[in-house]
Amino acid sequence: MTRQPTPDDKFSFGLWTVGWTGTDPFGGPTRPVLDPWEYSDKLAELGAWGITFHDNDVFPFDADDATRARITGQLKDATDRAGLTIEMVTTNTFSHPVFKDGGLTANDRGVRRFGLRKVLRAVDLAAEMGASTFVMWGGREGSEYDGSKDLHAAFDRYKEGLDTVAGYIKDKGYDLRIALEPKPNEPRGDILLPTVGHALALIAELDHGDIVGLNPETGHEQMAGLNYTHALGQALWSDKLFHIDLNGQRGIKYDQDLVFGHGDLVSAFFTVDLIENGFPGVPDGPRYTGPRHFDYKPSRTEFMDGVWESARACMSMYLLLADKAAAFRADPRTAEAWAYAGVLDLADPTLCAGESLEDFLASDDGFDPEKAAERDYGFVRLNQLALEHLVG
Amino acid sequence: MTRQPTPDDKFSFGLWTVGWTGTDPFGGPTRPVLDPWEYSDKLAELGAWGITFHDNDVFPFDADDATRARITGQLKDATDRAGLTIEMVTTNTFSHPVFKDGGLTANDRGVRRFGLRKVLRAVDLAAEMGASTFVMWGGREGSEYDGSKDLHAAFDRYKEGLDTVAGYIKDKGYDLRIALEPKPNEPRGDILLPTVGHALALIAELDHGDIVGLNPETGHEQMAGLNYTHALGQALWSDKLFHIDLNGQRGIKYDQDLVFGHGDLVSAFFTVDLIENGFPGVPDGPRYTGPRHFDYKPSRTEFMDGVWESARACMSMYLLLADKAAAFRADPRTAEAWAYAGVLDLADPTLCAGESLEDFLASDDGFDPEKAAERDYGFVRLNQLALEHLVG
Amino acid sequence: MTRQPTPDDKFSFGLWTVGWTGTDPFGGPTRPVLDPWEYSDKLAELGAWGITFHDNDVFPFDADDATRARITGQLKDATDRAGLTIEMVTTNTFSHPVFKDGGLTANDRGVRRFGLRKVLRAVDLAAEMGASTFVMWGGREGSEYDGSKDLHAAFDRYKEGLDTVAGYIKDKGYDLRIALEPKPNEPRGDILLPTVGHALALIAELDHGDIVGLNPETGHEQMAGLNYTHALGQALWSDKLFHIDLNGQRGIKYDQDLVFGHGDLVSAFFTVDLIENGFPGVPDGPRYTGPRHFDYKPSRTEFMDGVWESARACMSMYLLLADKAAAFRADPRTAEAWAYAGVLDLADPTLCAGESLEDFLASDDGFDPEKAAERDYGFVRLNQLALEHLVG
Amino acid sequence: MTRQPTPDDKFSFGLWTVGWTGTDPFGGPTRPVLDPWEYSDKLAELGAWGITFHDNDVFPFDADDATRARITGQLKDATDRAGLTIEMVTTNTFSHPVFKDGGLTANDRGVRRFGLRKVLRAVDLAAEMGASTFVMWGGREGSEYDGSKDLHAAFDRYKEGLDTVAGYIKDKGYDLRIALEPKPNEPRGDILLPTVGHALALIAELDHGDIVGLNPETGHEQMAGLNYTHALGQALWSDKLFHIDLNGQRGIKYDQDLVFGHGDLVSAFFTVDLIENGFPGVPDGPRYTGPRHFDYKPSRTEFMDGVWESARACMSMYLLLADKAAAFRADPRTAEAWAYAGVLDLADPTLCAGESLEDFLASDDGFDPEKAAERDYGFVRLNQLALEHLVG
Repeated sequence: MTRQPTPDDKFSFGLWTVGWTGTDPFGGPTRPVLDPWEYSDKLAELGAWGITFHDNDVFPFDADDATRARITGQLKDATDRAGLTIEMVTTNTFSHPVFKDGGLTANDRGVRRFGLRKVLRAVDLAAEMGASTFVMWGGREGSEYDGSKDLHAAFDRYKEGLDTVAGYIKDKGYDLRIALEPKPNEPRGDILLPTVGHALALIAELDHGDIVGLNPETGHEQMAGLNYTHALGQALWSDKLFHIDLNGQRGIKYDQDLVFGHGDLVSAFFTVDLIENGFPGVPDGPRYTGPRHFDYKPSRTEFMDGVWESARACMSMYLLLADKAAAFRADPRTAEAWAYAGVLDLADPTLCAGESLEDFLASDDGFDPEKAAERDYGFVRLNQLALEHLVG
Repeated sequence: MTRQPTPDDKFSFGLWTVGWTGTDPFGGPTRPVLDPWEYSDKLAELGAWGITFHDNDVFPFDADDATRARITGQLKDATDRAGLTIEMVTTNTFSHPVFKDGGLTANDRGVRRFGLRKVLRAVDLAAEMGASTFVMWGGREGSEYDGSKDLHAAFDRYKEGLDTVAGYIKDKGYDLRIALEPKPNEPRGDILLPTVGHALALIAELDHGDIVGLNPETGHEQMAGLNYTHALGQALWSDKLFHIDLNGQRGIKYDQDLVFGHGDLVSAFFTVDLIENGFPGVPDGPRYTGPRHFDYKPSRTEFMDGVWESARACMSMYLLLADKAAAFRADPRTAEAWAYAGVLDLADPTLCAGESLEDFLASDDGFDPEKAAERDYGFVRLNQLALEHLVG
Repeated sequence: MTRQPTPDDKFSFGLWTVGWTGTDPFGGPTRPVLDPWEYSDKLAELGAWGITFHDNDVFPFDADDATRARITGQLKDATDRAGLTIEMVTTNTFSHPVFKDGGLTANDRGVRRFGLRKVLRAVDLAAEMGASTFVMWGGREGSEYDGSKDLHAAFDRYKEGLDTVAGYIKDKGYDLRIALEPKPNEPRGDILLPTVGHALALIAELDHGDIVGLNPETGHEQMAGLNYTHALGQALWSDKLFHIDLNGQRGIKYDQDLVFGHGDLVSAFFTVDLIENGFPGVPDGPRYTGPRHFDYKPSRTEFMDGVWESARACMSMYLLLADKAAAFRADPRTAEAWAYAGVLDLADPTLCAGESLEDFLASDDGFDPEKAAERDYGFVRLNQLALEHLVG
Repeated sequence: MTRQPTPDDKFSFGLWTVGWTGTDPFGGPTRPVLDPWEYSDKLAELGAWGITFHDNDVFPFDADDATRARITGQLKDATDRAGLTIEMVTTNTFSHPVFKDGGLTANDRGVRRFGLRKVLRAVDLAAEMGASTFVMWGGREGSEYDGSKDLHAAFDRYKEGLDTVAGYIKDKGYDLRIALEPKPNEPRGDILLPTVGHALALIAELDHGDIVGLNPETGHEQMAGLNYTHALGQALWSDKLFHIDLNGQRGIKYDQDLVFGHGDLVSAFFTVDLIENGFPGVPDGPRYTGPRHFDYKPSRTEFMDGVWESARACMSMYLLLADKAAAFRADPRTAEAWAYAGVLDLADPTLCAGESLEDFLASDDGFDPEKAAERDYGFVRLNQLALEHLVG
């Protein structure tokens, strides 16, 4: 049992998370649809600080302007009343069949133009709702067959789309940043920005890349067998960790969207440790200060009680892990084990200040590789110490 | 049976490929060690154009300068005699136990300095051998446990190392480019640059990134479940496809290094199609013009005859696939299927030339999403056409 | 282009395959629903020999007896007219929310009783339709969390359910066999019979296991990184290959259900080679003689034309691969390569007929392991020969 | 920090675990080789109860009888003195190049006969050492290419080999049982008994299957993305869980052999819970009573101190998890959550005692599927409760 979360914890949830009705590739819904404000009110009650949503989580794909305004207004009022922040808004360019080959990179130019307009309108909505982040998940930007997509053109169109959206944000003077969400596959056989690395690489080619960063999702990286905490580390190092999607995944398989911590628990511990406590050897290094956002799904076996239990569990797991990580950092044995393992030494430049390569190459530092090879790094001991804090 | 390869095909092999003696985690060597020139002579005889090697494929880790000079000289003479190009040289910073925690990002600064010197000396060797590419595979740069590596410091050190090497190349005036080789894991639990995307992202942060690009390996991307041809596409789009490592892998498992085409054959077809024929809709787009380099292992069950058969098979598969890809491109049904699928249309910008966002948003192009959703993209038909060329 | 399939080819399709409307976890349908006979008529026209279906592919979950009888009668009439065989019928115990924790192994006994009744009624339907196989895919029999399922009880209930159904078939005197379809995960986190091996192991514990066998699906084994042809081999060796589900999968990820041959093509070649030509060294060994059944999904990007193209492609790929496999077997170089590799020698018992272990242990056959270790197995060459037939 | 292990905990280690010198596919040894008794003495000191070994962990492949007898005698003396049990002995039919295509299923009959003799001699050794289990891991029994192995013949030979060994054990009157160890791949592309299911299925076909069971290894099942605790559950249900190999694996990749609990921690918790506390709803169900055997590797980055730290960590993790599992079981909230989730109800037969199928089918129990579909199973809550015990 952990303490009740408070708004200071900055926990936020997508409305589509608690709002998922359980439809999956092999079965229909197991839960009813509530109104958006019913989800947000309950989340506030559970201790959440914020909510997020896709345009069509709230109003229908074909809603007219009046309907759209009425519903979003009603939601905004409800969240204001509940003291909730709408911290992120995004757009759905993957559910309607028109997007079956993507939005920004569909082979059909008509679809691309339609998709881009939908994105731009959602940017206006995000600004209107007071969001600070606009997530873009290109779930349908990809292919099943290599021959069906000209890859060069696809990256050109992706760049065009992102620069257009980012340029629009700047032109409008919105206080918004774009956060790309990579995913390796599902629903497409291969998605175009499969990992945090690929998205960072695309951002580096943008004209307006300064306001484009990342929204890495735990399970998405793990679906490629990759280390989520490493992904956060590289994104932070590149100054691009704009938002996070926390959840759980049990290995390389379909996208499970489990409760945070209910997947790879050891990885979740180190994720929280990085978010809460920063890089051990670079105390003044970049830190993530945004929302602790959950993008998960209450298991389909649960009815409404289970929905709220699962939302509660996301926050409890995070708080539990944060406590454990704090104790791990505070333990004097940790500092000792870091020293033994050389963890803090990696922050020392390899070359000395001002050392010329000529000087560097002229010496061998008296280094004996055979002797150095016998160093005991103590990585297992350090990991065991961390796990004893986690489990102990 | 395909035609005999010729030097014009630009096939090259690592000496460590045919030279692999079969030691794996569960067994000792099944084949003898030959002298470097025995491998290169035989490769020339089989029709290869070039060879590549790690420093310690040729001389021992602890060789003195004289030994080193003698052996590399002998190899250079042999390759000259055989008409082979030494197109790439790299350095081994992963086999000796001193590198057990990495070379450029080892926690131990002494190791980093030793590793960096070894890399710089190998750069000199690469230049001396006339190589145009210097591959860097950071196979030991990584960790098994998240707590054992400060990720920020690790990326700082990786950047420092790469910039030092690239700066050295420039200072020396060598006609060399660095090509990074990503890999998700093995031998480390998580390697720091796990995919082409992550390496591109790091390059974007370098001071001397202009001479640093990629050497993507088929199996390495596939070990993360990623699409190799997509990786080549993004690397080309970023103008960073400096070298390639072709081989075969049968899914997400240990690094198999099979003969090219003996893994995912459909993917290999589209890889060759991209290399040989370029992007279908961007005819003047970037092309890969470097060596067709194989980084594979003759299966451990084979003795020396099998070694040469497997080297022959790499080239045969490539040539076969190139023939098939040429026929696929030449078939008028392909152009028809591309048109049907909109493959070429993706090269058209989404916005019209000079179109303002105001104008763009003011219209809806008369687009009906419900009607557009009924488009039959014909991707399966296009893929079937490709496969009928491949198999037919 | 291959020849038109004919009923002699024994190709069959699930109605749910061409009938899949494209709903996936991230999007709604992209295609309309047709009547069951529209699918079957078209399949007959394309050259299929048979069809298969789940009860609720044809009539609604809550259909009353009259509706059920009317619709199934109409379908039977249509297939008779079209000359199609209804070779397999199965039941859907996974789509309705009542089955969210499984049918035969749901924790809720009321659900189990309801599920078992549904299965038994579908058995009656299968018999009535003249099917010879009753497939059981326990897609919801499993869990996301280890604590939520008593595993011993689950296997007891699985056994109880299967024995009840098999006993019922025997009691009724139906000419039907049950074929279990394993799958590792999706829609549950872990499904109880994840692979062909696990299902064979369960069958071995049944009271009525004689009429229970396997329906292995290409993609399901490959979702666990396993070799589908090996699975068929072990099922055949155990005399349990009752039915097959052919499709395509590109590695370990969500269930793709691609066209057969559009996934791992080399594996598909050897699958067809085994089905069509049997075990190379055991000519009188068990053979699969059942339908060539496709359980795939037309990609969601396709509209109705693409649906039929994809069904056509399944059959074309099979026929193409069968031609290639026949040529591979007929090539005298294959026999030579088999001999070189010892493929046929594996059929020779290790012990001599009548050899006592005492005699066996008393000798060493004059065997020299060092010398024998130098055998060149020629596996790469044999594989290259197969691939040259496949691609050549 | 946990208590010191004692022999009552029945912890055992393979000599090859602490004895692994760090050679991997990309690097040489990082640690020295000690004498077998040095490992066993140290393990005894750390609190282990037993040890296990392969023949060639102790004496060389080509040792003559005198050498063999001398070394094994010395080891036996040492373990006796240290109070250690030699609980399992196995044979190495994978390291020497003669076994490059397998032992029992090599295509080369000479190799098969040699391999079978080596196995039989190791059985004698196992009996002599007082072991109760003889593990057989067929790590080289498999293939890289489907065409290189006649699968039917391979299973025939596997059966012949296992029946010969089991028959020999019976003939000799040894108090030994065989435990098969499945693995999906590595070092072969596809290994013949890839999972616990496949091995159970083969055992069901043996003549002497009564003394042949399973030795499931945590990481091996997880390398196929399968649930290790499910595997233990099915093996126990089939009465075939003869031995276990505990270790850690971080997802689908090369065989990592991490410290137990350093891989998937949540899975490890439920593994220990099953071993220590049995099936929750079947209190008199089968229980595993054998050794808690670790088959892991001290990370290659560690020197000798790290070797012992890692052995200590295996035992500590197990003890920690056992404490947590005991508390989880004792918590009254667990019983309540089990009841809510129906976990214990699964032990109730679906049919009533003596209920005829006629009666069963004649009623519908007044069951309303729509209403039943609204059941909240509470699986997430139950899992969260378990994790709060694990982490809390």
